[in-house]
Amino acid sequence: MDAQEFRTNGHALIELIADYIETIESRPVTSSVKPGDVRDQLPEHPPTEPESFDAVLADVQNIIVPGLTHWQHPNFFAYFPGNASYPSILAELLSAGLGVQGMSWVTSPACTEVETLMLDWMHELLDLPAKFRSTSDNGGGVIQGSASEATLSSILAARWRISGGNVNTTGDTTKLVAYCTSQSHSSIEKGLRIAGIGTDNIRVVPHDESFAMRADELERMIVADEKAGLTPFWVCSTHGTTSSGAVDPTPEIGEIVKRHCLWLHVDSAMHGIAALAPEHRWINDGLELADSYCTNPHKWMGVNFDCDLFWVADRNALLGALSILPEYLRSAAAQNGAAIDYRDWQIPLGRRFRALKLWFAIRTEGTAHFQSMIRRHVGLTQELAAWARADDRFEVVAPHPLNLVCLRLTGDSPEDGDVRTDALIEAANATGQALFTRTVLDGRSVLRFSIGGRTTERRHVEAAWGLLAERA
Amino acid sequence: MDAQEFRTNGHALIELIADYIETIESRPVTSSVKPGDVRDQLPEHPPTEPESFDAVLADVQNIIVPGLTHWQHPNFFAYFPGNASYPSILAELLSAGLGVQGMSWVTSPACTEVETLMLDWMHELLDLPAKFRSTSDNGGGVIQGSASEATLSSILAARWRISGGNVNTTGDTTKLVAYCTSQSHSSIEKGLRIAGIGTDNIRVVPHDESFAMRADELERMIVADEKAGLTPFWVCSTHGTTSSGAVDPTPEIGEIVKRHCLWLHVDSAMHGIAALAPEHRWINDGLELADSYCTNPHKWMGVNFDCDLFWVADRNALLGALSILPEYLRSAAAQNGAAIDYRDWQIPLGRRFRALKLWFAIRTEGTAHFQSMIRRHVGLTQELAAWARADDRFEVVAPHPLNLVCLRLTGDSPEDGDVRTDALIEAANATGQALFTRTVLDGRSVLRFSIGGRTTERRHVEAAWGLLAERA
Repeated sequence: MDAQEFRTNGHALIELIADYIETIESRPVTSSVKPGDVRDQLPEHPPTEPESFDAVLADVQNIIVPGLTHWQHPNFFAYFPGNASYPSILAELLSAGLGVQGMSWVTSPACTEVETLMLDWMHELLDLPAKFRSTSDNGGGVIQGSASEATLSSILAARWRISGGNVNTTGDTTKLVAYCTSQSHSSIEKGLRIAGIGTDNIRVVPHDESFAMRADELERMIVADEKAGLTPFWVCSTHGTTSSGAVDPTPEIGEIVKRHCLWLHVDSAMHGIAALAPEHRWINDGLELADSYCTNPHKWMGVNFDCDLFWVADRNALLGALSILPEYLRSAAAQNGAAIDYRDWQIPLGRRFRALKLWFAIRTEGTAHFQSMIRRHVGLTQELAAWARADDRFEVVAPHPLNLVCLRLTGDSPEDGDVRTDALIEAANATGQALFTRTVLDGRSVLRFSIGGRTTERRHVEAAWGLLAERA
Repeated sequence: MDAQEFRTNGHALIELIADYIETIESRPVTSSVKPGDVRDQLPEHPPTEPESFDAVLADVQNIIVPGLTHWQHPNFFAYFPGNASYPSILAELLSAGLGVQGMSWVTSPACTEVETLMLDWMHELLDLPAKFRSTSDNGGGVIQGSASEATLSSILAARWRISGGNVNTTGDTTKLVAYCTSQSHSSIEKGLRIAGIGTDNIRVVPHDESFAMRADELERMIVADEKAGLTPFWVCSTHGTTSSGAVDPTPEIGEIVKRHCLWLHVDSAMHGIAALAPEHRWINDGLELADSYCTNPHKWMGVNFDCDLFWVADRNALLGALSILPEYLRSAAAQNGAAIDYRDWQIPLGRRFRALKLWFAIRTEGTAHFQSMIRRHVGLTQELAAWARADDRFEVVAPHPLNLVCLRLTGDSPEDGDVRTDALIEAANATGQALFTRTVLDGRSVLRFSIGGRTTERRHVEAAWGLLAERA
């Protein structure tokens, strides 16, 4: 493909994408394919001769698109919103087109500098504590691919700090103990496991009836571990859990963590973005006590995946944990401290120019746009919860201050409620008219109704509720 | 930005990217910015009102592009080739436009199925051992973001296997010992460190005069560690080291590793792609003895970053190391084993539709295209080495069977040679006419001349050599 063909094909692809997004509502939310169906439609062996781009696009239309779950569909109420807004799609195209590597400042200065600026812009827009700003003494932020990677980076920084750096030589993690709740995201256990903290040393702190961590239980467990000669080192406090949107009490957790010298990570992957709207800034409560923090513009802000924002108050711990400097990566700019080398702030070496996505989105949409989207979703969520409360067959099983309602069907018994709830989720999803995720809260089946699509309006929520009410 | 604006802006951006790539040769390879220069040209605070897309594009032209290191420049001979071909740029656009999440099969079936097929296509094109194919008993492949992540995944799988899975509960890595050489990539030490294997337990196996691992020394060290009551568990054999392109003797290493029951990972991030051309398939020697293998289409194949291919012979070890299944991620398709959930094959949970990049590139370019590009680069490398050999001032300090020549200036003494070589690299790079990377081999300064640009022709290599000869 030469430059002229790229122009022609690129224009065709822009049109295809616009058409896809504009007509997405006419499709079922999920695909009806069975495992193997997509592959069966494609040649088992690579072509020896080049094919036309039109042939590829035809397969995209006829095989790929019908094999997708449509995350951009306004009736997608499953998992979390994975919005890809128009400006962020274009920014991803530009990132690919420029084809630069941002592993070090010197490997493409603009990639690093725009990223630092975007972290500071978001720091300001979310009204985060001063210590996280790149212009503070020791803090700063970086774009990670996902909250999973941010969590792991936080664990590694904490592991480095508690061991005075010794973990880099000894690799001994056997006495380290970490704390979370059963409601923490699966990436917490995964990150700890990767970092050499097995389940024997992960304490699942009990939660209260709102599914938030019990701070008193946390302190009790830390004290017990200290007495047992172990080394409590890391706590994850979640602001908006995946299953139910529960918010752990970081102001209290933070005081305990300070007293016992642990690292406090706050995971607000889904809900932290709510702080773009001033009335939702309670979601930041306690962040001034945190050592690290992450939230995902690729969830609720219309910046396409992957874009997780990760801030630390002490960049030295992060660099101590993740920096390695071979000869072929040395540069004057980094050695005199004038520049940031983001490769030392993350797990992999290579990195894309992801900051363009935030830059394009913020500049072309404006802050008010994101605020109004968040307000619309929160408003719809409250309406939905009221409809569910007014229907005797349903119960709302968790607080729903932002964009997630957890519902279940009552039944003759809790077990009967489980059966009915599971059947409802299956029946509703099978229609293809909407998509919901099932979860389990305190042992009981629950339907998560997550409202966060860029194009999701009142009529979509109303119709989805109608679907549930009809199939209940 | 609405759909109509997206169309208009998208077309403009396609033109901008085509113009950028077509005219890239008229720019210096590197930027002349100093740390802070790019940020200083941008507003310190986010805009409150939306700006026009044209204003953003103007800043791209006037601030971003002049602040880049141009990895797509035909005179870029630094680091590694980071080619972004036209079809792969378009595939990245499509991936962003479809906006799907590929963490599980059910979250977008086509994303998983095309990926598995692409790994099998590449398996066939590279002529890899049967045990890595997805249709084999237990093997299979996945796209990772980078070789760093592939390496870490390999270490975690090995750690799981050697401990019979116990590491997931105990987190005890204190007796595990890993083996590599001083020439192994920095991501090896980083991955080991993350997984709880500190430098105390990383053995740097001596290398021979070609910078390849000495297999006899490897076995000696393994035996010594076994005698000391430690547990040798993982060896990295590199097929094409970063500094000099050295190839470790995997056939011999593999036999040793088998005898002592370690996990053998082969890192061929840069050079494995050479196997697309049958005459270079020696780069695969010994792979039938490896437990895992990775190579990067985002280096030498014109597939834009990120696209690392990672294969394992035993997927159970990988799944044992990386799988965690919360309620909100359960699905029928995965539970009955009919589908692959790639989230369990990698560090993070979320994943983009990266397989499109390979699919677009292979289909629209055809295999012969990649073969001829590789052959052109290898041929130019041999010519360059001959020119350097014919010039008394230079010495070629390492074998150069593929696309990398390591040069240094001779001097009155080795130290004098170092000074001259460092000065040459600095002077040549300062012209902006080409870009080289410095490395150190056996304590001596070396200029790496890496030939792998998609648009790099004989005239570019000739001019770059002329530049070096003139400034020497």
